[in-house]
Amino acid sequence: MYLEKINSPEDVKKLNIEEMKVLAEEIREAIIKRDAIHGGHFGPNLGMVEATIALHYVFDSPKDKFVFDVSHQTYPHKMLTGRREAFTDEAHYDDVTGYSNQHESEHDHFILGHTSTSISLALGLAKARDVKGEKGNVIAIIGDGSLSGGEALEGLDFAGELKTNFIVIANDNDMSIAENHGGLYKNLKLLRETEGKAECNLFKAMGLEYIFVKDGNNIEELIEAFKKVKDIDHPITVHIHTQKGKGYKLAEENKEPWHYVMPFNIEDGKPLNNDDSEDYTDVTKEYLMKKMKEDKTVVTITAGTPGSFSFSRKEREELGEQFVDVGIAEQTAVALASGMASKGAKPVFTVVNSFVQRTYDQLSQDLCINNNPATIVVSYGGAIGMTDVTHLGWFDIAMMSNIPNLVYLAPTTKEEHLAMLEWSIEQQEHPVAIRIPGGKMVSTGEKVTKDFSKLNTYEVKQKGEKVAILGLGTFYQLGEKAAKLY
Amino acid sequence: MYLEKINSPEDVKKLNIEEMKVLAEEIREAIIKRDAIHGGHFGPNLGMVEATIALHYVFDSPKDKFVFDVSHQTYPHKMLTGRREAFTDEAHYDDVTGYSNQHESEHDHFILGHTSTSISLALGLAKARDVKGEKGNVIAIIGDGSLSGGEALEGLDFAGELKTNFIVIANDNDMSIAENHGGLYKNLKLLRETEGKAECNLFKAMGLEYIFVKDGNNIEELIEAFKKVKDIDHPITVHIHTQKGKGYKLAEENKEPWHYVMPFNIEDGKPLNNDDSEDYTDVTKEYLMKKMKEDKTVVTITAGTPGSFSFSRKEREELGEQFVDVGIAEQTAVALASGMASKGAKPVFTVVNSFVQRTYDQLSQDLCINNNPATIVVSYGGAIGMTDVTHLGWFDIAMMSNIPNLVYLAPTTKEEHLAMLEWSIEQQEHPVAIRIPGGKMVSTGEKVTKDFSKLNTYEVKQKGEKVAILGLGTFYQLGEKAAKLY
Repeated sequence: MYLEKINSPEDVKKLNIEEMKVLAEEIREAIIKRDAIHGGHFGPNLGMVEATIALHYVFDSPKDKFVFDVSHQTYPHKMLTGRREAFTDEAHYDDVTGYSNQHESEHDHFILGHTSTSISLALGLAKARDVKGEKGNVIAIIGDGSLSGGEALEGLDFAGELKTNFIVIANDNDMSIAENHGGLYKNLKLLRETEGKAECNLFKAMGLEYIFVKDGNNIEELIEAFKKVKDIDHPITVHIHTQKGKGYKLAEENKEPWHYVMPFNIEDGKPLNNDDSEDYTDVTKEYLMKKMKEDKTVVTITAGTPGSFSFSRKEREELGEQFVDVGIAEQTAVALASGMASKGAKPVFTVVNSFVQRTYDQLSQDLCINNNPATIVVSYGGAIGMTDVTHLGWFDIAMMSNIPNLVYLAPTTKEEHLAMLEWSIEQQEHPVAIRIPGGKMVSTGEKVTKDFSKLNTYEVKQKGEKVAILGLGTFYQLGEKAAKLY
Repeated sequence: MYLEKINSPEDVKKLNIEEMKVLAEEIREAIIKRDAIHGGHFGPNLGMVEATIALHYVFDSPKDKFVFDVSHQTYPHKMLTGRREAFTDEAHYDDVTGYSNQHESEHDHFILGHTSTSISLALGLAKARDVKGEKGNVIAIIGDGSLSGGEALEGLDFAGELKTNFIVIANDNDMSIAENHGGLYKNLKLLRETEGKAECNLFKAMGLEYIFVKDGNNIEELIEAFKKVKDIDHPITVHIHTQKGKGYKLAEENKEPWHYVMPFNIEDGKPLNNDDSEDYTDVTKEYLMKKMKEDKTVVTITAGTPGSFSFSRKEREELGEQFVDVGIAEQTAVALASGMASKGAKPVFTVVNSFVQRTYDQLSQDLCINNNPATIVVSYGGAIGMTDVTHLGWFDIAMMSNIPNLVYLAPTTKEEHLAMLEWSIEQQEHPVAIRIPGGKMVSTGEKVTKDFSKLNTYEVKQKGEKVAILGLGTFYQLGEKAAKLY
């Protein structure tokens, strides 16, 4: 048992290779047990166990600074930096957040949870180090799935111009949350197949030096590579090939559903609380599946999160060219939808509330200035207080309702939502976004016959005096309850 | 005289090479004369004359669709698509906007004016073509400066996965508005030097096929290349090397100030209305130059628009590592500032109002969730009705004032602005943005002693009754005037 003796990275440095291998198994076991009981990110953490140990063995955190992209792969890092108990002692499972957090530890540098930000944030740490005349390595650790995001590519490009120490660990497990999408993944594949020797190399084309680690779950190989780049005086990418979900057979075999898990039975992988009840994203998917079969010009777009609207891999394949995953690239998703709608196709961009924030300028300029009739379905709205600060679903209202030409609808029931969706897809007047409610789905069974083309209207459901209750979208049912008190 | 006979692209197709060369000179002459009288984008249009003629000669617009990035290089395109008079007849100079506009012509497909959007928008046109079973080429034309923007890189990546016709013309003149920044420009240089033969190739790494045109101002070479890619059944990049400002000696020699011009004397290039009066961006620059000399941890950041705060090339070079141009990459600029501020450096991101929109998620997540005390100076605020719909400076207020932790200040005079800037750079409590007013600078000469750390306060300047006038930022002087009427 080594894990119980690890109170800081200093303790990792005392171990030999064989001991670190045992430590890796202990960490893996703790992650599996914790996620089975508590839920959490699964595959990303299991894949990064060895790399995290090797990073702490070679580098000197916090003088050397790690910035983990999305930071959903930081459980091993947290275990090695004084937060072990939050993973080994059930009573302490809630002591840590699911993401990196500088208020938890001096070994974390940012609260983050959106993808593709690590390189640019880490560049800030490097620049601060340089102007203050300080020393130390700055290391951004980014998964292949996050590489397609605009901010990550911008950061890689700017990193290529830096003249001081900067290290990018590209953790390549050949997966985003779902399968990867985009031309750059052909290049990563070529690099894996040639063990990094192919001349055509995205990282080199961006101006960074490059080395390849064939087995990113092999502690010795990783230590050797990290020692080679430690204290380097210019930017370099270390491309490591890891296995997502490593150590839990079901997750190794079927990576997508094991990216994030709710409590499950370790023996057979079955979820403990199997909630089969339909929600708004399910009915959206069912509606779209049917609609797309009837009309070949209807196309569903996702930016790397097809599962957030319950589209299974099988369904995606069945839909062929009518289902587009642009990869983690929300900006491109909105522009794509605008271009399609401008020529009479009927795009529906399905996006998680917190991630629609990543497209303000594209909504405003690419879509709404052109007034193209694309449809955007925004999921998980109004999740106030339900989740991490990085994934709140409420900023969309202030952000989107101030963009001219954009019609933002807030359905209150299943029937209203589907009627709005049908109207939106067929109308040719405006870009329309539909904010589907958070929480349990409400279904009235009644047919909705409202004319949605009459914009900016409210419906009076109950007349009274003294108090006006406005129940918008998610808050409609709450409003109804409040009205009964009068 | 050929230009006067060009009423549509059909007329271009009737010309032979020698006639097209004469046409190119006529177009160039018209641009120089119009910009000298009217002002407008200069260098970008002069560089694209031959390429635009060749595009219209080879392709069949509007069946084949061109999407010009930023679209500040579309004067030649407008001249060849029925809008000639707006460039040749002074009485009609104002008949067209400065950017692409589908309401002006069927040969334009979008209103656009922000950079880095063309590839993703054009992908939408290609996708609409495909699902509707239509034919035709889709061609995105993007300058090298725009390539560093996240949306462009996302688009390039997604284009690499397309299985149908898609053509990217990368117009490489080795310039952004100012000099280019980022590692990818080393790759473009390598490609130019090897005439496209280098194996390490950004476009290939993104999954696109690639060809190179050595002289992008040679109509024959361009026609040959465009014929080669016309009706291609997969994505390809045509990398053309052009000369920005070609045909006007001063613009060829000194590209940055000749990117956009105000009316000037053609003989000597001198501006006709030389307004030497200082404005808010000038005094910001002067203040920052002094501040940076006193404190090596103060760093000015720009995202490709150093000129918008009057930093000359000489001043930038003098500032060395204390002046950072991340290239057109606003998202990275904000993340960089956040990272720097988190470790005690003092970053100041100077950004044009309309472009701060491109960073909503980075402001919200990378910066403000972390509450890092970076400073953002937003220029040209409140330019209501003054400019193209793509460059309005008013959306920042609704966008930014709803982001928790962000302090958004609206100074009303030079003295207030500089006092706020000094306070912001030195304080360690919050991210602060300062919205400098549009229009003429107001200076009172009075020392400002306010304590800005007391947030969310208003100052009562004049007491009265019945009417409350709120004069915020740009509107303060107007408010004062209105108050006098009572």
